[in-house]
Amino acid sequence: MAVRAGIVVTGTEVLTGRVSDRNGPWLAEALRARGVDVGSVVVVGDRPEDLRAALGFLAGSVDLVITSGGLGPTADDLTAAVVGDFQGRPSIVDEALEERIAAVVARLSARRGWRMDPGATAAGVRKQAQVPAGATVLEPVGTAPGLVVPVAEGRSGPPVLVLPGPPSELQGMWPAAVDSAPVRAALAGATELRQRTLRLWGTPESELAATLRRVDDELAGLEVTTCLRDGELEIVTRYDAGAEPAYGRLEQAVTADFGDTLFSDGPTADALVATAFADRGWTVAVGESCTGGLLTARLTAVEGSSAWVLGGVAAYANSAKEQLLDVPAATLAQAGAVSPEVARALAEGARSRFGSDVGIGLTGIAGPGGGTAEKPVGTVHLAAVGPDGEVAKSVVLMGSRDSIRQRTTAHAVHLLRQLLLGGPPA
Amino acid sequence: MAVRAGIVVTGTEVLTGRVSDRNGPWLAEALRARGVDVGSVVVVGDRPEDLRAALGFLAGSVDLVITSGGLGPTADDLTAAVVGDFQGRPSIVDEALEERIAAVVARLSARRGWRMDPGATAAGVRKQAQVPAGATVLEPVGTAPGLVVPVAEGRSGPPVLVLPGPPSELQGMWPAAVDSAPVRAALAGATELRQRTLRLWGTPESELAATLRRVDDELAGLEVTTCLRDGELEIVTRYDAGAEPAYGRLEQAVTADFGDTLFSDGPTADALVATAFADRGWTVAVGESCTGGLLTARLTAVEGSSAWVLGGVAAYANSAKEQLLDVPAATLAQAGAVSPEVARALAEGARSRFGSDVGIGLTGIAGPGGGTAEKPVGTVHLAAVGPDGEVAKSVVLMGSRDSIRQRTTAHAVHLLRQLLLGGPPA
Repeated sequence: MAVRAGIVVTGTEVLTGRVSDRNGPWLAEALRARGVDVGSVVVVGDRPEDLRAALGFLAGSVDLVITSGGLGPTADDLTAAVVGDFQGRPSIVDEALEERIAAVVARLSARRGWRMDPGATAAGVRKQAQVPAGATVLEPVGTAPGLVVPVAEGRSGPPVLVLPGPPSELQGMWPAAVDSAPVRAALAGATELRQRTLRLWGTPESELAATLRRVDDELAGLEVTTCLRDGELEIVTRYDAGAEPAYGRLEQAVTADFGDTLFSDGPTADALVATAFADRGWTVAVGESCTGGLLTARLTAVEGSSAWVLGGVAAYANSAKEQLLDVPAATLAQAGAVSPEVARALAEGARSRFGSDVGIGLTGIAGPGGGTAEKPVGTVHLAAVGPDGEVAKSVVLMGSRDSIRQRTTAHAVHLLRQLLLGGPPA
Repeated sequence: MAVRAGIVVTGTEVLTGRVSDRNGPWLAEALRARGVDVGSVVVVGDRPEDLRAALGFLAGSVDLVITSGGLGPTADDLTAAVVGDFQGRPSIVDEALEERIAAVVARLSARRGWRMDPGATAAGVRKQAQVPAGATVLEPVGTAPGLVVPVAEGRSGPPVLVLPGPPSELQGMWPAAVDSAPVRAALAGATELRQRTLRLWGTPESELAATLRRVDDELAGLEVTTCLRDGELEIVTRYDAGAEPAYGRLEQAVTADFGDTLFSDGPTADALVATAFADRGWTVAVGESCTGGLLTARLTAVEGSSAWVLGGVAAYANSAKEQLLDVPAATLAQAGAVSPEVARALAEGARSRFGSDVGIGLTGIAGPGGGTAEKPVGTVHLAAVGPDGEVAKSVVLMGSRDSIRQRTTAHAVHLLRQLLLGGPPA
């Protein structure tokens, strides 16, 4: 019997999208790695009745409920009280905990130079020190303690693990949470769930669907899900260790049918590019325009990227393309700013100005304005030049301004992959 | 009695965070604008039993259930079938719809140059043309039609509006969805819910909590939620038109207590900066380092930004700071790459090289490596120079590499706000 967990993410800012939820996915992955399955993540605002309903929904079918958020000092932070009430355990102030939280708050305020109102601060701290009777307290990583609240004596139901909302605090508290006695007991018996990923670039989802249907009877024990995003088709499979042979058959079928678009059996394109640059000892510089800095930001998002990324120029105005990346005025005039010639000139200009081994350039029309009949919105030209040779690509992308910028950045990363590693064409 | 809706977002890729859910927040906002309240967004993977459970959870307490995702051609796309089954309405193939979908798929494939397998394509199209008996069909925006599936005759419960997963398709289909007879009937009686936002920069959440507690008895009818993100404290309030006077009292109290950190009664810092540049007719260029392109990307994310953003240089390597932005080698040697002097030199260099009116520079240590005792990870210096004067700021930020990069970018936007508009200091 699989061990299951349910997750409740609280916060009106998450419900409305002001903040993207990172805790649900992180917890689902952390749990999967321990063989615990997550069926649902329920996102609620700051209303007690909605949180209560979510707890009620999940508690009937899982071994552990986990909540995130709602542990701050303001009146709309009410998770601990609602969970305590739901589990039938009234809250009391833990005074030793209150002192520890007060000390943390004082230290943080001093470091950040905030002016603090003593009454406001004390009230907030006291609120954060309220603990349901019988709950296990997890020491604060920030200011808010976590809790493991078992159901009241004589009742049945899963314990509720209450974690802070800020992702760094939640992740910092996780080791203590899974090590606590009630959580260990709840998750006892979980067996390892494996997860493997295959990545295709350029295959439509319906063709993959046909392959999966064809070999369906060989895949018992596998849970296969596919996701098409920014042009990349990702096949994620979860299974018990006993179904490893079935995964081998799936991988064989995909390799046989899609050998020319299968570019990875795990690592992302970004990871492949980063490793390739490190292995070759090459550096790269970027000359981008419509993506406005997104490509350089994406390459530098990886830890250690300073070893191989010298930087980039977002040459938004045409004057910037000439002045900073030496794109000839004549080329801009004849071919136009959005052309293969200018993409190549941006790549060469970046390589030359930064002194890198590889240069990548791109130019396009992100929209919504700026398109013409010959060069509609979504027209993008890319070029990558390196010591061994060069590659280029032109596409017309559909979608919103943001979507075109994001997809162009993805195409650029795949072009670098193609330049450095060969394999499936970008 | 408020009209309520519940939202189910389907897709293992969303559950695991491979893709950030944009549909839940977008739908919640679109519904709010029509006076419809959303209590929960439930995210499930691709398993029928989890989708059924989510439908069961929501159906008991809302006037309309909305699902997104799971309408594609692969076997894990099963929303239409599960919803039909849940509502007690068996599915049949709508052959006229099947022809229309086939035509769309053929047209899309020709444009994108995909090689299509006829059998695979036909099977996927047939699957997408399955319609629960008695459901209203919403014409495809992509390839998948939407559906409005009422509960079976003789049973009670809300209708389920089934929408595609890709955000552009869901948003494109929304007008037809809300215009359909069953959805109009479900949402009849909704009254306008207003929403207003106040934004503070530099006030801790506990101080705001104290103000809210103090005036709590004047705020009847207001639902006030606060969210601290990237250093910015956002107060979002929802209320019926009748509670407008209460909102005035809230605004008064916040203005009185936090006049020196309240920087907006609505527009984001980014919007204020974009408007200020447009109003002055000034241009800006960026000299960034540890943010790697994020600041330029953020400024250019706004439509129409080409009128005032000339571009930016992500000068990741020190050589790039010298070569592309003329930061003197002596300054780098004496003050170090992470110093107020270099921040100012980056701002001046960007302004000079791009020929802009305003230059903004920043330099810091994003981590996790690179910190020292005197300059720990999170040390950031920023400077902005313009025709009227200049401003500068230094901070030490806590958190992960990604968090430091994001918060530095937020500080930079606020520094531009301060340079152009005065008001609360960055």
